Amino acid sequence: MAAGRQDQLKLGAFLYPTGHHVAAWRHPQAQADAGVNFGHYKQLAQTAERGKFDLLFMADSVGTRGAPSEQESLSRTATRYVAQFEPISLLSGLAAVTEHVGLVATASTTYNEPYHIARKFASLDHISGGRAAWNLVTSSNAEEAHNFGRDSHVAHADRYARAREFAQVVTGLWDTWEDDAFSRDKEAGQFYDPDKQHLLNHRGKHFSVRGPLNVARPPQGHPVVVQAGSSEAGKALAAESAEVIFTAQLTLADAQEFYGDVKDRLGSFGRHRDSLKIMPGIFPVVGRTESEAREKFDLLQSLVHPAVGLQLLAGMAGGVDLSQFPLDGPVPQDIPETEGSKSRQSLLLGLARRENLTIRQLYLRVAGARGHWQIVGTPAQIADEIEERFHGQGADGFNVMPPFMPGGLDDVVELLIPELQRRGLFRKEYEGRTLRENLGLQRPVHPATRSRQAAA
Amino acid sequence: MAAGRQDQLKLGAFLYPTGHHVAAWRHPQAQADAGVNFGHYKQLAQTAERGKFDLLFMADSVGTRGAPSEQESLSRTATRYVAQFEPISLLSGLAAVTEHVGLVATASTTYNEPYHIARKFASLDHISGGRAAWNLVTSSNAEEAHNFGRDSHVAHADRYARAREFAQVVTGLWDTWEDDAFSRDKEAGQFYDPDKQHLLNHRGKHFSVRGPLNVARPPQGHPVVVQAGSSEAGKALAAESAEVIFTAQLTLADAQEFYGDVKDRLGSFGRHRDSLKIMPGIFPVVGRTESEAREKFDLLQSLVHPAVGLQLLAGMAGGVDLSQFPLDGPVPQDIPETEGSKSRQSLLLGLARRENLTIRQLYLRVAGARGHWQIVGTPAQIADEIEERFHGQGADGFNVMPPFMPGGLDDVVELLIPELQRRGLFRKEYEGRTLRENLGLQRPVHPATRSRQAAA
Repeated sequence: MAAGRQDQLKLGAFLYPTGHHVAAWRHPQAQADAGVNFGHYKQLAQTAERGKFDLLFMADSVGTRGAPSEQESLSRTATRYVAQFEPISLLSGLAAVTEHVGLVATASTTYNEPYHIARKFASLDHISGGRAAWNLVTSSNAEEAHNFGRDSHVAHADRYARAREFAQVVTGLWDTWEDDAFSRDKEAGQFYDPDKQHLLNHRGKHFSVRGPLNVARPPQGHPVVVQAGSSEAGKALAAESAEVIFTAQLTLADAQEFYGDVKDRLGSFGRHRDSLKIMPGIFPVVGRTESEAREKFDLLQSLVHPAVGLQLLAGMAGGVDLSQFPLDGPVPQDIPETEGSKSRQSLLLGLARRENLTIRQLYLRVAGARGHWQIVGTPAQIADEIEERFHGQGADGFNVMPPFMPGGLDDVVELLIPELQRRGLFRKEYEGRTLRENLGLQRPVHPATRSRQAAA
Repeated sequence: MAAGRQDQLKLGAFLYPTGHHVAAWRHPQAQADAGVNFGHYKQLAQTAERGKFDLLFMADSVGTRGAPSEQESLSRTATRYVAQFEPISLLSGLAAVTEHVGLVATASTTYNEPYHIARKFASLDHISGGRAAWNLVTSSNAEEAHNFGRDSHVAHADRYARAREFAQVVTGLWDTWEDDAFSRDKEAGQFYDPDKQHLLNHRGKHFSVRGPLNVARPPQGHPVVVQAGSSEAGKALAAESAEVIFTAQLTLADAQEFYGDVKDRLGSFGRHRDSLKIMPGIFPVVGRTESEAREKFDLLQSLVHPAVGLQLLAGMAGGVDLSQFPLDGPVPQDIPETEGSKSRQSLLLGLARRENLTIRQLYLRVAGARGHWQIVGTPAQIADEIEERFHGQGADGFNVMPPFMPGGLDDVVELLIPELQRRGLFRKEYEGRTLRENLGLQRPVHPATRSRQAAA
């Protein structure tokens, strides 16, 4: 069942319309209409599958992050991608034109109902033959709150309490039918076996949901559950319920500390260390030579507009406004804590302090990888560093964030992946049929099946 | 722009896993796993496109209609389809493997948020290149209420008030960007023109939504808005905001009355009679000869289990329970009115009274077409009746409900459609690129564009 090898990397392709560099859409080869161009995404998905990627990863927000309404003065000069496909519909389309690659959509627990989310991911899992995954997040963005009848976003602690209950309801709904509940016995006229239907009857603080789900149990049992929080509450929730963590770790030491911390928490939930894959982001700028890689990066950096840089920092650090400070002065360390993403805010301030960066240097530093691990180099140089982190227990794999698309993803597939394969660090063929199998994750046995097996 | 001919029929293919006859899944050729078989739907969609259908239509419910929890005693003996793909994800997948056919998904205004719905249909419209439509419904099913924290469903009047405001918010969100708002000017670093972004700033009784939507204005301006209610409130809402009505009309006289009533209402909203297409359901059992058609129908009728028939009547008439009355006695006319779908309940009771039917006869009558217009015959016989209703101002087209799938849809495409084409009643090639163009509906001009044109 769990066919994926534990001694090889797991790789995600984090799709973002024109690439992860904030100025990627201005790249001469960028498909600037990427956010409404299905053919572009079809090409990316098929490239990733050619590269034997485990999964496609899509972020999400139920609002326009960085749109002008919040920061009118900044955004009138220039801006970045603010509108694109909704992930579940896009990945459903891509499911029809791919065969192997996993499909990870982000969906917020803050402004959704668990029945809808359980259902859509179950449906995507059936459409794709077992390749769906849900990246469970909370919404910390005021832009999102305003689209759902609220004047401000929900406090951090409340969001996580709701998220925890939300995850319980969703996984519970996936189990409202046993795997073989639908007998479809034409002769007897019995479509399903009522004994294999289990109402959820959940009554909690945030949700009351009876069930059953109106989709059969997903091919993977449960679509893979992904999480992206690195705060204390985020790590606690992940240790309880996530199977993949997407995280941001800049140094080997940080990566090792996070990795050890989260893996050590699994035991108290009765979980094995292999049952959760830790996949930090990596932003690789790949060139055949070091100077070719550097040129590619410099071109992108030269395209960053100052207004965009400031807006980006504000967006990453939970709304903090640095536009009142001198652009070439130091990053102030005493800015007030906000209700936004605390983990990302402290990550940014730590980076500025450690390397004594100006505001401009800080935004240029994160404009590329947005707080993720950035490497500019040859396939061998990048593979060396990946190998070090993988064998040094800093990561089970990486979520690859190509700086520009499609060129940056092509570079990874044509240059970097063959180098990883040559070293035996990455697969040459998919091992399994489902995402879960390729990741080496067990398929959740239905509770009733387990009881029946235990009784036998 | 509005390329579709007004002198020809519009045709929808109403997809339902194994077909619309309640016993279709027991048909020897039925793909009984249809609800989780994407390949089956891909085949249906491509068949419909070969037949030049305007659109694929998918019903929806956010619960398991007719699942055992409500009527345990009935359902343990046998049952019908209760679990299947979620429509928006399924149609997104089908968008990737079709080119011309429209994609209509049903989504309830009762247990959704308008931002999610506006976004998903805008996304589907971009994925499909302008082929999306939203069938706006309200939820009258207690099964659905229990999945969304309620003990009973919402009262009829409240549902429609919410639906009306919901539709205003959704169409408003589709207009939060002008068509050419995304200039994507790489040189200037200007991704979009802030003057062409319009916040919605809606504050109403049910919703507060600021916007903008995080998807560009859809290729069709607005995805086509479909409605299915035939109650007084449903007709009023449709006359204000629908562009297609899916309805159930059994006789020519009923169809003409409904058609005239709804079309006459359009003027008071400043709308042209051609701006709303009325497409009643039709359940055609097509045979090369009359006896072949009759045999096909009799086979399906012979497969209806009595428990299923009673359950079906209960589901159609808003939860009314006829199981306490003799199966071969008359349908009682004094059953209490429920908060369910009033229009369908009175339709059923009217039919029973008019034709003096027993309970068994009534369920066998509606088991096929479920209250829709049913014709069993040769292509010429069916085309005669279609022509009469179309030319007699009873319909602008029909939503075709094949009794079993894929065979029943194949029959329509191979036998009936060529007959309609021969008579000049139906297209031989698609006229336009978008669903809106094929239906002959105008593309909504953005309000700001209209103001600018008026000022010039």
